[in-house]
Amino acid sequence: MSLFEAKNQDDGSAVVTQDKRQVSGEDSLIARYFKPLATDPGAFGLVDDAAILKSSGEDIVVTTDAVVEGVHYLADDPPDTIARKALRVNLSDLAAKGAKPAGFVLTLALRKAEDAWLRPFAAALGEDAASFACPLLGGDTVSTPGPQMISISAFGRVPQGRMVGRTGARPGDRILVTGTIGDAALGLDLLKGGAAAKALVPDPAARDTLVGRYRVPQPRNALAEAVRDFATAAMDVSDGLAGDLAKLCAASGVSASIDASSVPLSAPAAGLVARSAIRLEALLSGGDDYEVLCAVPEARCEALIGAGRAAGVAVTAIGTITAGHEPPRFLDGAGRELVLKRLSYSHF
Amino acid sequence: MSLFEAKNQDDGSAVVTQDKRQVSGEDSLIARYFKPLATDPGAFGLVDDAAILKSSGEDIVVTTDAVVEGVHYLADDPPDTIARKALRVNLSDLAAKGAKPAGFVLTLALRKAEDAWLRPFAAALGEDAASFACPLLGGDTVSTPGPQMISISAFGRVPQGRMVGRTGARPGDRILVTGTIGDAALGLDLLKGGAAAKALVPDPAARDTLVGRYRVPQPRNALAEAVRDFATAAMDVSDGLAGDLAKLCAASGVSASIDASSVPLSAPAAGLVARSAIRLEALLSGGDDYEVLCAVPEARCEALIGAGRAAGVAVTAIGTITAGHEPPRFLDGAGRELVLKRLSYSHF
Repeated sequence: MSLFEAKNQDDGSAVVTQDKRQVSGEDSLIARYFKPLATDPGAFGLVDDAAILKSSGEDIVVTTDAVVEGVHYLADDPPDTIARKALRVNLSDLAAKGAKPAGFVLTLALRKAEDAWLRPFAAALGEDAASFACPLLGGDTVSTPGPQMISISAFGRVPQGRMVGRTGARPGDRILVTGTIGDAALGLDLLKGGAAAKALVPDPAARDTLVGRYRVPQPRNALAEAVRDFATAAMDVSDGLAGDLAKLCAASGVSASIDASSVPLSAPAAGLVARSAIRLEALLSGGDDYEVLCAVPEARCEALIGAGRAAGVAVTAIGTITAGHEPPRFLDGAGRELVLKRLSYSHF
Repeated sequence: MSLFEAKNQDDGSAVVTQDKRQVSGEDSLIARYFKPLATDPGAFGLVDDAAILKSSGEDIVVTTDAVVEGVHYLADDPPDTIARKALRVNLSDLAAKGAKPAGFVLTLALRKAEDAWLRPFAAALGEDAASFACPLLGGDTVSTPGPQMISISAFGRVPQGRMVGRTGARPGDRILVTGTIGDAALGLDLLKGGAAAKALVPDPAARDTLVGRYRVPQPRNALAEAVRDFATAAMDVSDGLAGDLAKLCAASGVSASIDASSVPLSAPAAGLVARSAIRLEALLSGGDDYEVLCAVPEARCEALIGAGRAAGVAVTAIGTITAGHEPPRFLDGAGRELVLKRLSYSHF
C-alpha cells in the first residue's frame, strides 16, 4: 500500500473535518477481539506500545515459538484449535523450565481480518490464557499475502537461578517423560490420509483422540514446580522424543539408554504399533508431543511420579542417562538397538 | 512435510547406526549464524528452550513488532538493512518507554536457509545488538512458503513503576518530537517510483538519505533516560505522526494543537514540500519515522532538548496539549487547519 494516498485528497485548508480520530482497521481489530484478553494491569489494556512485567524478585523465563499455516497447523484446522496450539506450545516450554506463566505477547500475521476466523480464535486464546493464568500482554497484527502465522513469546517466573536447563543431566539419572508419545504425529498422519488413517477407518473415537492431540497440545504446567524441584535437566518434546533427547544429552555432555518398549503410548497408538500399521520408530521421532522430558536422580523419581499422579498426569521412566558422548540408544524389548534414521522434524 | 518419512526405512533392528546425533538443518542454521550473537549468559548459547532475564529489581518492558516482506520492507531490500530494521523498530519502542535495552528474541520465518541472505542478515543483527547493548536471547526459525517475516520481542528495564506510558499527557504540556518526520515515507515512495522519485532524479544524495531512513531507522535510545525523566507521556512514531499523536491524546484523554510548519523536516523533505512535489500532509501521516513523540511540561522542555543536543539528536517543540476530546488539530503557518484524511498506516 502506498503511503501517499493522501496526496490525492483535496487541499482543504481551513476545513474542519469530522471524525478525524478515525479508528484504523488494525486498532479496531485489536480492541474488538484482543482487548478483553488483556486482563493484566501490565498490559495497559493494549493502548500502549509496550507492556510491563512487574519486578518480583524472580527471574523471567522467556520462550518464543511460532506456528505457520501449512507447517505447524493445517489451513483447515479450526481457528480455536490454532489459537490453543499457538499458546500451548509456548506454555509447554515454560512447564519444562519449571516456570510459572506470567503472560505472553502475540504477533498475528493475517491475510485478512475476518470475523468468522478471529472471533473463535480470540475466544479460545482467552480461555486458555485464563485457564493457564497467562494473560495477553500485547502484540502486533500485520497483514501478509502469504500463509498465516502466529508467533508468541511467553514469559514465566522462577525463583532466582532456578530455571531448569538442559545441561544438568548426570550419568545415573533416570529419564522420565510425561503423558504419551507419538499421538500428535499420528494425528497429523490421519489428517493427511496416511497409513494411520487407513488403519483407523473403523475407529472414529481413536481417530478423534489422535487428531485432538495434534491440534491441541496438553502442556504440563501443573507439573512445573515438581520439575523444578526434582529434575536435573528438562525440556519439552516438540520435535520428536529421539531428537530432543539427543539435544538434552548433547547439552549435558552425556549419553542415554532408552528402553523403547517402556515409552508410554496411548491405547490407539499402542494398537497401531501392535497391528504393525505403523512403526514405533516413527512415533519416537514424530514430534508435536509437548510432553516434558527430564532427567531425575533415582532417589527423586518417585516424588515426581507422585506429583504427576496428584495432577492426573502419567510420568513414566523410560531409561537412564549414561556417561559418554555417543548418541542416545533406543533398545527394543530384546535389547536390540532400534535404527532411527530421522531423529526429529527440522524446518530446513 | 510428512512426519512419517521414517516409515520407509529398513527394519534395522540390531543395526547400530552411524552419525545418529545428526544436526538438523534448523539447529545447524541457528548455531552457525545466531549463536555468535547470543552473548548474554541468559541466552545459554541458544542451546536451551528458553532464556532468562535475571531479576534486577527493575520492571521489564516488553514490546513486540514484526516486519513482513512486501509490507514493511521490500523483497529486494538488502538483508543487512532488513535485520537492522527488524530490531530497531523494537528498540524505538523501548526508547520511547524510557527503557534500557536488555535483550530480544527473534522469530525468523524463511522460505529457505540461504547463506547469501543469512550471513549478512545475522552479521548486521549482531552489530546492532552490540551497539545498542541488546543481545539476542533466543528465537525460533520456521519455514514458510510465503513472504518472509521477522518478528522480534524486545525487552528493556526501567526502575519500578517508571515506564513512560501514553496516558500522562496534560493540557499545557508541550509536544516534542525527535529527529525529522516524513523521510522514511519519502524513501518508500522513492523505492516504489512515486512522485518523490520523479522529483529527485537529479539528486542522488537526497535519494540515498531518504531511502536510508526508510530502510534503517535511527531509534533514539540515547534519549531514553531523558524521556523517562522529563516526559509525561511518550510513544514512538511508527504509523505516522498524525495518527500516533491521535492515539497518545486519546489514551491521555486530551487534545492537541500542532503548528505544522514547525514539524521538523530534513533538507530533502523540506525541499520537496517547497517545490510542491509532495504535500506536507503526506509526511505527517506517512509512517516509519521511528522518532520519539512526547508530551513534556513547559518547565522541563529545555532539559529534554538539551539532552538531545548532548546526544546529537534534534528535539523540536511542535505544539501543545489542550483540554478536550476532539482530535489533534494541525494548523498551517496562517492558522488554518490542515485536512488529514488518512492519519496513519493501517494493516486492515
